[in-house]
Amino acid sequence: MNAEIIAIGSELLTPFRQDTNSLALTQQLNDLGVELDFKSVVGDRRSDLVNASRTAFSRADIVVFMGGLGPTEDDLTREAVAEALGLEIHRDPKIEEELRARFAAHGWKMADNNLQQADVIAGAEIIRNPRGTAPGQFLRAEFKGRQKIAMLLPGPPHEILPMFEKDCVERLREIVPPRNIATRVLRIAMVGESQADKRAAVIYKAHPEVQTTVLAGAGEVQFHLRAQAESQEKARKAVDSLASKLEDEFEEAVFSAQGESLEQIVGYFLQMRGATLAVAESCTGGMLAQRITAVPGSSRYFLGGAVVYDNSLKSDLAGVPPLMITEHGAVSSQVAGMLAEGIRERCKASLGVGITGVAGPGGGTEQKPVGLVYVGVADENGTDVVERRFPGDRDRIRLYATQQALDLVRRRLM
Amino acid sequence: MNAEIIAIGSELLTPFRQDTNSLALTQQLNDLGVELDFKSVVGDRRSDLVNASRTAFSRADIVVFMGGLGPTEDDLTREAVAEALGLEIHRDPKIEEELRARFAAHGWKMADNNLQQADVIAGAEIIRNPRGTAPGQFLRAEFKGRQKIAMLLPGPPHEILPMFEKDCVERLREIVPPRNIATRVLRIAMVGESQADKRAAVIYKAHPEVQTTVLAGAGEVQFHLRAQAESQEKARKAVDSLASKLEDEFEEAVFSAQGESLEQIVGYFLQMRGATLAVAESCTGGMLAQRITAVPGSSRYFLGGAVVYDNSLKSDLAGVPPLMITEHGAVSSQVAGMLAEGIRERCKASLGVGITGVAGPGGGTEQKPVGLVYVGVADENGTDVVERRFPGDRDRIRLYATQQALDLVRRRLM
Repeated sequence: MNAEIIAIGSELLTPFRQDTNSLALTQQLNDLGVELDFKSVVGDRRSDLVNASRTAFSRADIVVFMGGLGPTEDDLTREAVAEALGLEIHRDPKIEEELRARFAAHGWKMADNNLQQADVIAGAEIIRNPRGTAPGQFLRAEFKGRQKIAMLLPGPPHEILPMFEKDCVERLREIVPPRNIATRVLRIAMVGESQADKRAAVIYKAHPEVQTTVLAGAGEVQFHLRAQAESQEKARKAVDSLASKLEDEFEEAVFSAQGESLEQIVGYFLQMRGATLAVAESCTGGMLAQRITAVPGSSRYFLGGAVVYDNSLKSDLAGVPPLMITEHGAVSSQVAGMLAEGIRERCKASLGVGITGVAGPGGGTEQKPVGLVYVGVADENGTDVVERRFPGDRDRIRLYATQQALDLVRRRLM
Repeated sequence: MNAEIIAIGSELLTPFRQDTNSLALTQQLNDLGVELDFKSVVGDRRSDLVNASRTAFSRADIVVFMGGLGPTEDDLTREAVAEALGLEIHRDPKIEEELRARFAAHGWKMADNNLQQADVIAGAEIIRNPRGTAPGQFLRAEFKGRQKIAMLLPGPPHEILPMFEKDCVERLREIVPPRNIATRVLRIAMVGESQADKRAAVIYKAHPEVQTTVLAGAGEVQFHLRAQAESQEKARKAVDSLASKLEDEFEEAVFSAQGESLEQIVGYFLQMRGATLAVAESCTGGMLAQRITAVPGSSRYFLGGAVVYDNSLKSDLAGVPPLMITEHGAVSSQVAGMLAEGIRERCKASLGVGITGVAGPGGGTEQKPVGLVYVGVADENGTDVVERRFPGDRDRIRLYATQQALDLVRRRLM
């Protein structure tokens, strides 16, 4: 079975807003064995919406409508889908009562237009919306002689996501023929995208039974594996077998075999070792600490550190001798190493990290161009510093540098 | 004139990838006076692509195709658009020559499938692609008796964006009837979304000649204004007049009248005053410093600071007396104020900021629930601390807290 997702709302056709719900919905549909073949975005014009609905029903078994269920005159999804399917709409007295009760409970006066949220397409089941006023609808209907499933759901992410995940998936599971699907995500750090894909392609192309998607970010490549087979066990085996071949190829560059982020993995390792971490950041300006502390519970292993943007702070907060900066420059291997050692000592941490570099766009020289970054890591056994030249703009260079730092810590803890 | 954007590629129908180019393209189209009426995403199946092209040509004057121009057998955009329009394709000898030269220059052997990138739809103009191998095409053609414009462009953002911005917009400007459009973005800080919209709606609804879009983020609401009129001057006047009414309503909550970010504005103010800033962050864990240093040139006014996750560092790096923490708790007004004062002194900055709070999901108590944040700001005139309870998850609470801190600094500098 295949599906189409239609996002409704003129604001989604502006330069400022984008549908993001569809990614989570796609994941859930795929897990059921349903492929997404089309996505579309339509504004709040009734004729456009009716036509888009007809197009969708003519090419997809399952059509998910997101948005356009509210109380305003721009909320036309119910009417348009009913028209596309040639079905009537009736006002549901129970929903109407609930709407009235909800407004009364808040002491609000209810304008009449709110009642259109009680309009239900003939034959549709109501999907309750605990976080908003507009309920959803789940409908099995015929379109040009073929059975179709339509879901009408509200647009706000915090409303639609739980409704889809629970009520819609439950209903779909009864209708969609059961599939045996297994998935797996491998993530590798600090291997270039083209090199990673080249080395991986030799392996995954020999396994057409597993669908492999390669995604790349700054200092990270992800392999998303997915197999469907006659049994759950076979699907799992296919995915695991390819995963372990990829793990053999990339060895310790694989930081995560179940999809965890690099900062999560570093956190696991630190906790496992009973170790603590402190960081001193110059060019990344707090981004490394921010990534580490984005993980809930990171206070168990992350002590903190310093953002040493100004050179005087490199000395005052992280113990870099001013002479070292004068001699080698703030962006140097020596300063990166000393930042790592100094912050480790100052914070009494097991591990210290130091980062210094040129994030750009200004400040680059011939000897020290934009993108040049030194990352140091220090523990009781000594200090390592790596020198890297990262491509991209300021934000990307900073992201690369934090990725490199996390990866160095991970390797030190392995 | 209206437009449709079609993003092509099966990877855009997975849970992992999303079209983002269309936002920038929409901005450029809108600036020309062209409205975007539809967006769609189609996979790499020829029949789907032909049908989607026909649907688009039947409802839009301008159709932008993104992706599917590469050398693989999945790259079908040229063929599909030609079929939808009933046009022939020919191989362009000049592009073929360039492709061969490009491969030769790199010492690569060229597989034959690369040559399909030299295939051009009859009547199309070539759009050069300096950053990739697949050139674009700009085509004026008839579909069911009506003049249409089709653009075929590559998918990677760094390829398509400069091609669209330069070559496509130039060509469109000669075709699209000229419009007089003026835009303006007002941003306000730390006013709740519903309150802001309520106060603003009274004003902007009285100005239907200006199209107003309200966007909300953590601790920020943006008003995007846009007017079209008989003359550029009139459009500008309409936008400016509404903007100044909104500025009067929100007074000093308006931090930016031309779209600048809060961290940029804080940077302007600091530079203007010849002042410097240092921060001590607990629950935000470096996010505030990261935001400040995301602005190029921030080293002119940002000295750095400390991430004081562990309580011992609140004392060691930011001078908070351990007794104060024992007495009032790490999350307290006293500690926030002291962090601001201590880091200011330690870094010899004109202004110091301290943040402490409960970002969650764990760690909340009845007295100090998740979302409780104290932000202090200190300068030579003294110290202010605000107490806030922010909604949302860990990431959102942290973002709110940094927004609050930046806004306090801005108000202090005003």
